[in-house]
Amino acid sequence: MAETHHVYKLADRPRGTPTEDAFEYAEEAIPEPGPGEALVRTIYMSVDPYMRDRMRDTESYAEPWDVGEPLHCGVVGEVVESNGAGFEAGDVVTGELNWAEYATAPAAELTQVDPNRGPLSAYLGVLGMPGNTAYFGVNEVIQPHAGDTFVVTGAAGAVGSVAGQIAKLNGARVVGFAGSDEKVEFLEEDLGFDVGINYKEVDDYGAALREAAPHGVDSYFDNVGGPITDAVFNHLNVDASVGICGQISLYNATELPTGPRKLMNLIQTRATVEGFLVSDFSERFDKSAKQLGQWVADGTIQYRETVTEGLENAPDAFLGLFEGDNIGKQLVQVSEYEG
Amino acid sequence: MAETHHVYKLADRPRGTPTEDAFEYAEEAIPEPGPGEALVRTIYMSVDPYMRDRMRDTESYAEPWDVGEPLHCGVVGEVVESNGAGFEAGDVVTGELNWAEYATAPAAELTQVDPNRGPLSAYLGVLGMPGNTAYFGVNEVIQPHAGDTFVVTGAAGAVGSVAGQIAKLNGARVVGFAGSDEKVEFLEEDLGFDVGINYKEVDDYGAALREAAPHGVDSYFDNVGGPITDAVFNHLNVDASVGICGQISLYNATELPTGPRKLMNLIQTRATVEGFLVSDFSERFDKSAKQLGQWVADGTIQYRETVTEGLENAPDAFLGLFEGDNIGKQLVQVSEYEG
Repeated sequence: MAETHHVYKLADRPRGTPTEDAFEYAEEAIPEPGPGEALVRTIYMSVDPYMRDRMRDTESYAEPWDVGEPLHCGVVGEVVESNGAGFEAGDVVTGELNWAEYATAPAAELTQVDPNRGPLSAYLGVLGMPGNTAYFGVNEVIQPHAGDTFVVTGAAGAVGSVAGQIAKLNGARVVGFAGSDEKVEFLEEDLGFDVGINYKEVDDYGAALREAAPHGVDSYFDNVGGPITDAVFNHLNVDASVGICGQISLYNATELPTGPRKLMNLIQTRATVEGFLVSDFSERFDKSAKQLGQWVADGTIQYRETVTEGLENAPDAFLGLFEGDNIGKQLVQVSEYEG
Repeated sequence: MAETHHVYKLADRPRGTPTEDAFEYAEEAIPEPGPGEALVRTIYMSVDPYMRDRMRDTESYAEPWDVGEPLHCGVVGEVVESNGAGFEAGDVVTGELNWAEYATAPAAELTQVDPNRGPLSAYLGVLGMPGNTAYFGVNEVIQPHAGDTFVVTGAAGAVGSVAGQIAKLNGARVVGFAGSDEKVEFLEEDLGFDVGINYKEVDDYGAALREAAPHGVDSYFDNVGGPITDAVFNHLNVDASVGICGQISLYNATELPTGPRKLMNLIQTRATVEGFLVSDFSERFDKSAKQLGQWVADGTIQYRETVTEGLENAPDAFLGLFEGDNIGKQLVQVSEYEG
């Protein structure tokens, strides 16, 4: 085994859209697991839009990353060495580890997964945080009814693609906004969405929405925010339910983003708008993971992944999220599974 | 009895802040009640901010007023003649009638009230629509808990003044925004609010709020919207509950009002924002009226009214709402109760 490995650290807090300059690619000694810890070799790591927020030095639900310290991320990896952590070398685990080839963690922060139940990458996507976000956002926060029109933004992404499919399972008519014709084809052909809208080819979001959702919008799963969300708010039906999951269009803003004031729409429609975090549902991840696993196994839910090869390309993969480069879950493959 | 009476009609749809030019003061024959109708002489009439919306020719929860037709409003009046409507001359009734000295209405649109239970004017305020709005907005929509910090805007108005007192009854710490020192004194001295803020004397709403609500905002009853609401959204606690009742600061806007995008705050706080209309609770007005009547009778809830004399001054009274001229419920006294 190599004596050293690579790890990405936060070089500087970016202002506006981050560049490669925000990342420091360091080589250092592979850490030793302390008592009760395991050393894990990263197979897949996850990059997610919410990480932009962790680059800021402001209070948020996600703890800020420290300059000069390793960046964190969801990892699927293989236990190399267990120092009384209760694992065996070769066990596959998930956890919140580092943008790195190796990391140590206490046993309590690692969850063993069965490598025979499906592709390991899925534990960072449809069977992991993004899948859980979609599951609880749809079924607990928004709760669409059969016959409702359900709109989702970032529809071809890791969360949106699953959210729309779960809404379909609830009997909703599903309209998804995504950023390319290829993504729209993915929504309509592979995922069974009723309508996909390539927002980059649309001048008037309101007109596109009126055509796609002629009876108005009952349920809205928002990953994006900004002008598309303004248009959706103009088309909400009475008693509409809106879940705010993300606002990726605003994450890189350098000035406080402004837009039309929309609270008036809520009075007329008596709509409810609720922000949510998947972590608030963590006590029920067992249940959601089981259901999602079953849906994936029997083909009820389809998913796609965009896999970037090599830890060194992780910043590229992350920055590409804001360009809409990915379809489905964006992952970085850091090493091969040797099990 | 006079053969003619006066009635206000919509002269023209105003753009921006309305002026007297929007109102036509007409003299016409007193109407005859048709079969099943009563003729009612107006004692008090109500002017309310939401009426601004009825001047527009756009779809809304409140049906638009027609140009050249009488304006509508809540009225407490005395039955002059009942043409098979089941009332007797001298009965006191409330209903949605006209900005006029007299109006006819079918029996089903009139509710008899007991003139001995309290001042008749209260049926248009604390015991009427504004009181019900406060009651259901606090107890059904926002549901503050004991120890919560509850913020209300338009706090010295007909709805806000009652909402804050009901929140106090629920054990909340109550902070109210109002537009004069006299109003703040009313909040703090008469109504028992913990803190009143004269927003016209405050440069930085956020700083004022941090001082008045050092532990953040758990519950927000919004009648006003705009920059004060922006500041409150910046101070929401986790799981905060926001009820949108009105947005008076925006009603007269000629351009689509813009402001900072605030949906990000909802994710971090997992706050819920819900618009509501009192009419959605109409099946339970019996219950709320009884409770409010009891609270008023035993002095638990205090209220104040601003009464403008004479139908001819009704437009002034209405336009004054947008200047914050009123403390408590703004009424127009059109005639004396002769019972």
